[in-house]
Amino acid sequence: MPKESREEKRSRLIRKSEEEVSQAFSSPDHPIIQAISAYKELEKIRGMLYERMDEWYGIYFPELKTGNPDTYSDIILSVRTREDATEERLSVLGQESRVLSERIISSGTRPSLGESEYASLRKMAEAEKELGSTMEKLDGYLKESVSISMPNISYLIDHKIAAELLWKAGSLERLASFPASTIQLLGAEKALFKHLKFGSKPPKYGVLFKLQQISGAGKKQRGRLARAYATKISIASRADAYSKRFIAEKLKESLDKEVSRIMNQQSKMQES
Amino acid sequence: MPKESREEKRSRLIRKSEEEVSQAFSSPDHPIIQAISAYKELEKIRGMLYERMDEWYGIYFPELKTGNPDTYSDIILSVRTREDATEERLSVLGQESRVLSERIISSGTRPSLGESEYASLRKMAEAEKELGSTMEKLDGYLKESVSISMPNISYLIDHKIAAELLWKAGSLERLASFPASTIQLLGAEKALFKHLKFGSKPPKYGVLFKLQQISGAGKKQRGRLARAYATKISIASRADAYSKRFIAEKLKESLDKEVSRIMNQQSKMQES
Repeated sequence: MPKESREEKRSRLIRKSEEEVSQAFSSPDHPIIQAISAYKELEKIRGMLYERMDEWYGIYFPELKTGNPDTYSDIILSVRTREDATEERLSVLGQESRVLSERIISSGTRPSLGESEYASLRKMAEAEKELGSTMEKLDGYLKESVSISMPNISYLIDHKIAAELLWKAGSLERLASFPASTIQLLGAEKALFKHLKFGSKPPKYGVLFKLQQISGAGKKQRGRLARAYATKISIASRADAYSKRFIAEKLKESLDKEVSRIMNQQSKMQES
Repeated sequence: MPKESREEKRSRLIRKSEEEVSQAFSSPDHPIIQAISAYKELEKIRGMLYERMDEWYGIYFPELKTGNPDTYSDIILSVRTREDATEERLSVLGQESRVLSERIISSGTRPSLGESEYASLRKMAEAEKELGSTMEKLDGYLKESVSISMPNISYLIDHKIAAELLWKAGSLERLASFPASTIQLLGAEKALFKHLKFGSKPPKYGVLFKLQQISGAGKKQRGRLARAYATKISIASRADAYSKRFIAEKLKESLDKEVSRIMNQQSKMQES
């Protein structure tokens, strides 16, 4: 074998590592992980922008509180002066809009928002709405790609929670290799560490807590519900990663049964 | 005096505190403080979004690095496939665009960016650009309002740095009440605290370090330059807050003299 020159060796090795990197990133999991982590970041960013708008605009309209950044932006975009605060324009806030509108219009002592100051605030509200629509776009992308690469898991749970499980696990293969108990605690690493190190209470759920079925249940049922979900997700993940067969209908059926069993047991215990 | 009913007393007190709050917020400083803190927050938010885009898009185009989020967004908006990476489209990156373009187009093993994945990234780039234009809007507003309420200070230093000093001080009156030494260290509170508590080196400048004239100078001159600036800003702030006379031309002249004296002394010391 002829000895390769230093230059040849160098470019051969570069090519090789490029291929390796390429392979690692060409897995269909990768864009999902990027998209869900971008989504979570955008959620945080949007919250920061909302807080900032609230601190500024709130000087002029302290009454206008809402937990929804998008609604808040809509109000900013349509209300500059107290006279703008009509019932109609505040109707996005729901029931209280009439009371609010009357109170705001009649409050005479408050300073009013200057033209160019308002223009800055408007621009911030527009940026907030742009972030919101970016999140929608990402959500749509996630829904589509999660249902393709994890058909079984996403039949059982919300696609964003499925994507988060994938993100925490690192890849579909790794997720499939986890026992149910690990899946149950994915995303609760900090609490688990605290438990092991300082002896605080062990966590009962991580990412899965975001499932409405679990967070909405009674405190005593949540742990058992999380375990029931984790068990089925674990089976589903193996089907998604290896057999590629769609078995989620059956899984869902037996999951639903187990969930109602847990809920019933609890209510019986309360009765007795 | 007839005794007022409980109801009357209540509404009188509410009106009174509303007036007080109103007065506190009707100062022209207030919107400036809101705008500069919003600007700083947007800067942070934009950096977060940029990092996230870089992590995602960078999988496909690791060569495309730039410190400027806006340039990066421009590239994302015009380059999806390797074939898109023409010299022309990369020209925003400056000199290296030809080399980069050739390398990217010829690299065959890299995975390519899917249509709907790209749509998500595009949307993020658009949001980034929207944030950028919001920052421009705020900057314009700051420039205008700072030059109105702090004509003297903003004649000496950049309007955003002037706004930051105001923000750290809390109001123009407070800024005007500070000695030069305090103005010099505004924004370096943490470092000062560390110095007092742990005996680390005392800070030489806070917000003022952002002045190109200070950050661009030699390490040994910076402290003295910061003090020279702080002294003149302190005088200017009193004129802005109380006498309302425009004295900044004279101040600037003597400041420039002092700055060149400091720079010359240093170079003489180096020579000897």
